[in-house]
Amino acid sequence: MPEKEQGRILLSVTGFSPRLWLELLSKSREVVLEPDGPNDPSITYAVVWKQRPNLLAGLPNLRAIFSIGAGVDHIFNDPGVPDVPIVRVVADNLTQYMTEYVLWRVLDHHRQGMLFRAQQKRKIWREPAQRPASDISVGIMGLGQLGRAAAHTLLSAGFRVNGWSRREQTMTDVATFCGDDGLIPFLNATDILVVLLPLTPQTTGIINYELLRELRKRNGLGGAVLINAGRGRLQKDADILRALEDGTLKEASLDVFEVEPLPRTSPLWNHPAVFVTPHAAATSDPVHLVEPMLEQMAAFERGEPLQYVVDRGAGY
Amino acid sequence: MPEKEQGRILLSVTGFSPRLWLELLSKSREVVLEPDGPNDPSITYAVVWKQRPNLLAGLPNLRAIFSIGAGVDHIFNDPGVPDVPIVRVVADNLTQYMTEYVLWRVLDHHRQGMLFRAQQKRKIWREPAQRPASDISVGIMGLGQLGRAAAHTLLSAGFRVNGWSRREQTMTDVATFCGDDGLIPFLNATDILVVLLPLTPQTTGIINYELLRELRKRNGLGGAVLINAGRGRLQKDADILRALEDGTLKEASLDVFEVEPLPRTSPLWNHPAVFVTPHAAATSDPVHLVEPMLEQMAAFERGEPLQYVVDRGAGY
Repeated sequence: MPEKEQGRILLSVTGFSPRLWLELLSKSREVVLEPDGPNDPSITYAVVWKQRPNLLAGLPNLRAIFSIGAGVDHIFNDPGVPDVPIVRVVADNLTQYMTEYVLWRVLDHHRQGMLFRAQQKRKIWREPAQRPASDISVGIMGLGQLGRAAAHTLLSAGFRVNGWSRREQTMTDVATFCGDDGLIPFLNATDILVVLLPLTPQTTGIINYELLRELRKRNGLGGAVLINAGRGRLQKDADILRALEDGTLKEASLDVFEVEPLPRTSPLWNHPAVFVTPHAAATSDPVHLVEPMLEQMAAFERGEPLQYVVDRGAGY
Repeated sequence: MPEKEQGRILLSVTGFSPRLWLELLSKSREVVLEPDGPNDPSITYAVVWKQRPNLLAGLPNLRAIFSIGAGVDHIFNDPGVPDVPIVRVVADNLTQYMTEYVLWRVLDHHRQGMLFRAQQKRKIWREPAQRPASDISVGIMGLGQLGRAAAHTLLSAGFRVNGWSRREQTMTDVATFCGDDGLIPFLNATDILVVLLPLTPQTTGIINYELLRELRKRNGLGGAVLINAGRGRLQKDADILRALEDGTLKEASLDVFEVEPLPRTSPLWNHPAVFVTPHAAATSDPVHLVEPMLEQMAAFERGEPLQYVVDRGAGY
């Protein structure tokens, strides 16, 4: 296909250097960091992370927008996002990192890492009671690519797994719940809650005190556990703190926060029952993500449909 | 079968209460905590953990000794252990716990748990470089029931796996090494060393400074890692400390120690690169282990061979 017809890629990212993305995308296509004016006809694709608002609004030949990262809420924060397909990134590498993070955090809570570290500090040699994984139900909110992969791995590790999603889903060996009606039964059957939801107007603030209060507490873990590896604005930081203080939650692993970076004034930093990571559960590594994007563009130009297109009505 | 022919079980344990074992074994067979004299003819089986020396030596009708726990070195510490089959406990429950422990510790080192906890203490929001699990080779020393189960789970989690054993073994997707000749090549190809060896005269002190120096250090982890969930006397505590001090080792997770409980004077307790658990990787839970033992006794009396019999020459 002649180069002219391919058009150019507009790469627009905020919060990190586009250098490596630029280098890798440029090996196959012409890439620019700024359009030649607001109506640049040469731009056919945009590859974005928190693009500048209205940057894409006037591009007449834009065919699709590719999101860097599994979530796409950052794209919808722009009121001027044009009506072209938005493609979420799906890559084995990203899924692998997220699955690892979830398994790591579930195991650390299940195997009482916080207790052992506290004992070690005081040189206490004492073996606590330990329950088998088969006594513990991990509940995953969000059964997209990442949630389903995490569910499979947790099952292999011997845990029971519940899943909740807005729309009905089924998965072998997973007890699935859906919609508003399914939420309370799902929580009532869950010991460790793993949040992998997309951020939409419907899910903003969904992880609040009232929801956490529904988690199963009389369990082999000595309390309910929250793991959020989705988006920070799904949760209310203050409600998590309240739940930890009054025993509604025993422990939490948080990779995301309402405000990021987590402000130094947040009591979450020093809470003994909270494990903080700096939005590092699953890095969007261009070395692994650029190739699937370029393949999608090439397939699209051969007339094949785009994969992993966002449902704009649902917002994910 | 008449009760008389069954004989009685002698239950002899040191270091923990035999209460629950006694209760559960007694549901099916007559159990005593002491024989009626040194030549009690009514004892046909012994179920032991660090039995009193020479306790078993004179029992004329002892048919087999069952070990509580996966290791059997505690039995051979008794010079008066009679020449009857010694059966190691193999139970899904025990294997599951050990596999969980290994996966948990490998993930915590791979995902840089120590770094994140140190950052959290200082409220540092910084994402370190992270390598995919497929870049990391976990080397398992000891490919018995526990080592093989751990290898399978680590493969599922995406790691490369090497295995070393004294006698030649093969496993799908695992690079296996054996004997003295295979040890250095095995270590040279290993980033995270997991020790699940039996304790024998040949393996005592095998985890020393010279061995640790052979581990691969220029890897995505920023250094070599040691995980010992086998027996404490496999390792030299002082050599591990030396290796941590000079960078030969980056971090270690130790469930076992030369002297247990780990003395309060040991520098391992407060070393920032060491995670200490109190020999808690895999608890011998009578709720799950008594039934397989009773089944073995019944099968043996029906004329079937005992399973998991220890090779006395090898000591495991």
